[in-house]
Formats: sequence, C-alpha cells, structure tokens
Amino acid sequence: MPHHQHPQDPLAHVRAKFHIPANTIYLDGNSLGLLSENVRARVAETMQHQWGNDVITSWNKHGWINLPLTVGDKIARLIGAPAGTTLCCDSISVNLFKILCAALQINSGRTEVLSTKDNFPTDLYMVQGLQQLLGERCTLRLVPEHELLDAISEKTAAVLVTEVNFRTGRKLPLADLSARARAQGALTILDLAHSAGAFPVQLLENDIDFAVGCTYKYLNAGPGAPAFLYVAPKHLQQRTTPLQPLYGWLGHAEPFAFTAEYAPAQGIRQFLTGTPPILALAAVDAALDVFADIDMADVRQKSIGLSEYWLERMAAEGLLELMPSISPANPEERGSQLAFQHEDAYAICQALIAEGVIADFRAPEYLRVGFSALYNTYGEVEKAVATLAGVVHEQRYERAEFQERSAVT
Amino acid sequence: MPHHQHPQDPLAHVRAKFHIPANTIYLDGNSLGLLSENVRARVAETMQHQWGNDVITSWNKHGWINLPLTVGDKIARLIGAPAGTTLCCDSISVNLFKILCAALQINSGRTEVLSTKDNFPTDLYMVQGLQQLLGERCTLRLVPEHELLDAISEKTAAVLVTEVNFRTGRKLPLADLSARARAQGALTILDLAHSAGAFPVQLLENDIDFAVGCTYKYLNAGPGAPAFLYVAPKHLQQRTTPLQPLYGWLGHAEPFAFTAEYAPAQGIRQFLTGTPPILALAAVDAALDVFADIDMADVRQKSIGLSEYWLERMAAEGLLELMPSISPANPEERGSQLAFQHEDAYAICQALIAEGVIADFRAPEYLRVGFSALYNTYGEVEKAVATLAGVVHEQRYERAEFQERSAVT
Repeated sequence: MPHHQHPQDPLAHVRAKFHIPANTIYLDGNSLGLLSENVRARVAETMQHQWGNDVITSWNKHGWINLPLTVGDKIARLIGAPAGTTLCCDSISVNLFKILCAALQINSGRTEVLSTKDNFPTDLYMVQGLQQLLGERCTLRLVPEHELLDAISEKTAAVLVTEVNFRTGRKLPLADLSARARAQGALTILDLAHSAGAFPVQLLENDIDFAVGCTYKYLNAGPGAPAFLYVAPKHLQQRTTPLQPLYGWLGHAEPFAFTAEYAPAQGIRQFLTGTPPILALAAVDAALDVFADIDMADVRQKSIGLSEYWLERMAAEGLLELMPSISPANPEERGSQLAFQHEDAYAICQALIAEGVIADFRAPEYLRVGFSALYNTYGEVEKAVATLAGVVHEQRYERAEFQERSAVT
Repeated sequence: MPHHQHPQDPLAHVRAKFHIPANTIYLDGNSLGLLSENVRARVAETMQHQWGNDVITSWNKHGWINLPLTVGDKIARLIGAPAGTTLCCDSISVNLFKILCAALQINSGRTEVLSTKDNFPTDLYMVQGLQQLLGERCTLRLVPEHELLDAISEKTAAVLVTEVNFRTGRKLPLADLSARARAQGALTILDLAHSAGAFPVQLLENDIDFAVGCTYKYLNAGPGAPAFLYVAPKHLQQRTTPLQPLYGWLGHAEPFAFTAEYAPAQGIRQFLTGTPPILALAAVDAALDVFADIDMADVRQKSIGLSEYWLERMAAEGLLELMPSISPANPEERGSQLAFQHEDAYAICQALIAEGVIADFRAPEYLRVGFSALYNTYGEVEKAVATLAGVVHEQRYERAEFQERSAVT
C-alpha cells in the first residue's frame, strides 16, 4: 500500500487515551464513540469505592446529587452555553418532550412546530406524541430541509431541527436560522446529537432558545448514556408556572422536604425529573474530562482534514462515480461525517465490517462514515478507503451473508 | 455484648455475594441497595469487552437492543407478572407519566386520579404536571391512606398508590384495593419502589392494571439505576391509538426504518422511548441474577424475622417508649422497613451513621431502618440496636455536628 502525505495532526496524542479495538478501523464514532481509559477507570471507581464503600453517603460525599448540573456545565463549555443552563439527564426523546412543552408555553399564542421531513425520526415522533395529548394545541409542519428557513412564519411557535442531518451530514447555518426565527417570533430548538463534541457550537452567541443532544456519539460516554438539554438564560427567569410538565421530585425547589405540592426549583434544575443515574453520569463526566485541554477549533480542523482526505482518496480510487457522496461538497457545510449512495450500500457496509472497517448503513441506501477527531487518524482513512476500493471494485460485497439484512442495522 | 438466640437464616449464604462496607451495619437497603460482585463484574465486562472491543456491533451481538425487555422479564418474575409485560427503562417519574396517560386514555370518560396524601411526592408531582398540561382532563384527589379504599368511586379513573408507604412502611392490601377499584370501574396504578425484591408481589393474580418501580433499592442495581413499568396483558391488545404519548424511536414498530410517521410497536415495547442506557441496564440484569435461585417466600420470611427481632431488641432496651414505632405492629401489614418517631430523629440518625450504623431520616421526625434479606443478618440487628440504645440513652446525638441539617438527608 503506498504511503501518502498526511496533514499534520495536533490531536494525535489523544488517541492513546482510548481503547482502540484490535484490527479495527472504527468509523462509527458518529453512532457510538469509543471507550476511553478515563471512563473505564471512573466507572470502576464510582462503582467500587463510591457505591461499594460509601454507599448512600455518596449522594453528599461524592456530589452525586448535583451530577446532572456539574456534568451539564462541562457540556455547556463545548456548546457555547453559560454555566447553569445545561443538564445531563434522561434521553433526547424525554428531554425534547420537556422542551417542546416549554416552547409551546412560552410562545402560547402559536401551535405550529416546524421541522424537516428528514429530521431524525425520534424528534418528529415526540411532536406527534405531544399532538396526541394536546390535540389542536400542537401541530407539526414538515418541509424539505432546503425550504426550512423560508417556511418559518408568524405562525411558527418553534423550529425544531437537528443541526447536522443524520443521513447527509449537512450542517444548518445556525446564525441564519436563528435570525429568521427571531424575525418571525419563532423559538429555536436544536438537536445537537451530531454536533456536541464534533465541532464548536455557539448556542448563546447565536441566540438559540433550546437544545437537546446525546453524549454517546462524539462525546464517547457509552451506549445509551444520558442526554443533555439546554435552556437559554432568558427563559430561566422566575415564572409563575413551571416550564415543563414532567414534575419529577429532583426538579422540586426542596426535594427532600417531601411536600405533596410541586414547586419548581429555580433555574435549569426544574428540568430535572427522577433520581439521576449515577454510574452513567460518572461515565459522561469522565468522557468530558478528555475534552478538558482540547481546543474545539482543533477538533473541527482535524475533522475537516479527515473527511477531505477521505474524499481525495475515494476520488483517486475511482469510487465517487460508483457511490456518489450525498454530503455537501463544502466542508464548512458538513458535520463530521460523509454518506455515499449505492444500491448495495447495506452489503458493502457488511463486507467492510467483515474486513475490520466499521462504518454504518442508513436506510434506504447510504453508507455512512463518521470521523472522530479524538482518535481517528489519516492513516486509518487511507487504509479504510483502500479496503472500500477492494470491496467495491472486486464486488466482495456480493456474498449472501452480506446481502441479508438483520433487524438492527 | 450478650449473644441472643437468632432465628435460622436460609439466606445466610447470599451475603457473601455482596460488597459489605467495612465496619458498617448497612440498614439503608430500602434507599440504596449494596453492590454485589455480580454487578461489579458484569458492568466491567460490558464496559471493557462489549463496548470497548465490540463497540457498535454489540447492539446485536450482545443483545443490547433488547435489554429493556430481557431485563424487564427478569423483574416480571419477582412481581408476579407474565413475560412481555414489563420493561426496564427511564425513571419512575417518566414511566409514571406514560402510565398515567395510558390510564386516562383507557378510562377516557373519567378524569380523577385518586391517591394518598402521604404518597411518595414524585408520584403526586407527576399527576400535577399532567394536570398543568391537560387542564380539566386530569384531576388529582388526595385522601388519607386509611380512607383510600372507601374513596374509590365511579368518578375515579385510576387509583395511584405506593404499595408500601415510604415513611411508615405500611403495606396496602392489594387484593382489597384491586377488588374495590374493579367494582367501581377504576384502574389501579401501583408504585412498587419499596416492594420489588423486598417480598413477593402478585400483580397478575391481583388483577393490577399498571405498575412502576425502581431497581436501586431492594434489587441492588445501583444509584439511580433504570426503573421499570408493568402493563397488564389485557391493556396490551392492539389499539388504533398508542397508549402513551412519549413516542420515542425505540417504541416504534420499525425503529430502524427511520420513517417520519410514528407507528407503535406491538405489546409492551411501545412504552419504550429513547436509546436504552446499556451500562446501567447491564447492572440491573446482573443484580437480578442474584435473585435467580432465591425463593421470594424466604426473602419475606427473613425480612419479617429481622424486623420482629429489631422490635424485640428495642423493647428489651427500653427504646420503644422513647421513640415509638409508626409502622404497623402486624408484620404482614409492613414492607421491609420500620420507622420510629423522635423529635431528634435527624441527630440520632447522624450519630448512628458516625458509629457505623447506616439508617436514614425522613422528614419531619422519623428514623427509618430497612432490612435487606439478601445481606442483613440477625447479628447486625442485635449490634445496631445496642448502638442505638447507647446513642439514645446516653444522648450521644446531642453534639452540634449531628444537629445541623445538610441540604440532602
């Protein structure tokens, strides 16, 4: 295999902090990030020494009770949010339910939630569920992604979009979105699932109202790790009515007074619901510490470097004609992934996995590769594209076992 | 210290499976159960070998995607529920929200949720939150616990109670509750937080409609571990409208088809919302395996044995006059805890903790002790009561550091 000239990599030293699976090129960090030694050690410590030895006293002694907020503040740093505006809790779906209710309450004269047809489905499902509950008080309008900005009107209560499209990797222009929404009196709700940890996000600077996101992709906090939610400071002022209806005891002003009447805590804490999942939160906390001395501008630069190098190598191998990119050509308009269309994309993905290159497939016919600047290398890109070239040019994907689809892809 | 005659203990061998904190008598298993070696090993294995090595392929390879159901089935065995009716997911609060919506939909002509004034607050808060959202379509009526059965009427949509009162330990008569509710056309929603793993529960036999519960108390699955929910088989028949409004993608009939329209999965799966928290679910799974070869009748028998022995020892030490029990005298009417009233209960609890006896305090003035039949011993009861006697009779709780209350108790 010829060795090409790789760009310089100021994050090269970070890879050693991760458990890299043997004989594997892992390009699925946009779905599930890798385990770091930081996380492994912290979960073991939390389990054995905090829970195991100090048991119930750990709620105070080890700050368990405040973990959703302290971890939230570490996430805030990565998404351009001030301290005290971000919680780590629940799932994206549940957090989005809270946020949708808050948005419809704040913009109470309006009912329309505007989103894109190919938004990540769970986001749309949550609006549909709220519709079932609220009837006419909540409506969902879906438009193609390229029509979104123009579709924001004086009827729009909130615009709900995933900043980076989960299939194409297209990254929406936040400043334009926010300006258009403000001009029409609409609120903005961002899903940062494919943004947080992938590139710098500026929520406050862009005057975004609400955001949700997950920690198991580019933040590397583990499968199904707790999600986060953000509420702009201006919406956290004291109000007579709580902002969201999932009145869990930890969102109460005095959870340990055990009073029968709900009274919301001040600030972001009122968005808490049940008892926080400590082992999982400890994993998020430790995963975020890996970012502590990392400049997100370096992450963005390397992410673009890796994806551009991937495209360059695919072009050199004559692959782009056979499986064209459906991602924006301008790297500034992408998140940290690329997707390629091929009618046998599912089988190609399976064949790649069998040869140690972990990519993923998204229906109906896209091969998706994610770049995690913290552990992926230019050398991996070179080898992975060479494997892809072999799989495609030699039709190594045509074996029956690769063609048959399993329930979970 | 004199040695008394302890009852026989058929579960004595189980204690060795747990990490018993050094120099500690742990009587707070009703708040946070102890770490078992089973859980420690499984979380480490899930983290290092499944997530660490097999990464994304683990969703299929290690059955991650079905963990909420497979773990749910293990819980079902302990609560008298058939397979396919119980999920392990989210928190009690969030699960209760789903269940409340389902109950109000099924009993759609009625609006009243009937509960007790001293139910665990988060249960009441969740109804209050739903009220905020639904207005007149949801009302909450609170009655004293002893009036509950008589208060169930033809106006009651659902009775929501915690089977075991978190303060007093009183255990409600399920058969009577269920019969009265059925006679009035009301549905039953049980919170099993202090029941699951503490004694045998018979949901199906008692024709209970819905239940929620936690896994971090008597099930020993770790701080803030995922909760569970149960839906009676009769309510899981195919319907045109989904039963609950938190339409997460994993409750979809085909989550990986990524269609924009929600369509509920058949059966209990439609109560799933977001991506399952794998490390936390692995902990629950392993914690339940400790129960695999244990007869819940033995658990109940030992639990009663421990609490009766505790009362016997307190009587012998002359403590019951100074801090009377607020728990039912008949052990059949109790869960697996006792509570004692004393105006200095908070300071007494702190003094006990300082001497290695971990009990807990519940506002306004109760000392609570929980008995976990899997690891507590009769010898511990004897020593703990002796310590309590010293603390109370010699007023060792009167030091300033014990009197000052911290935010979290």
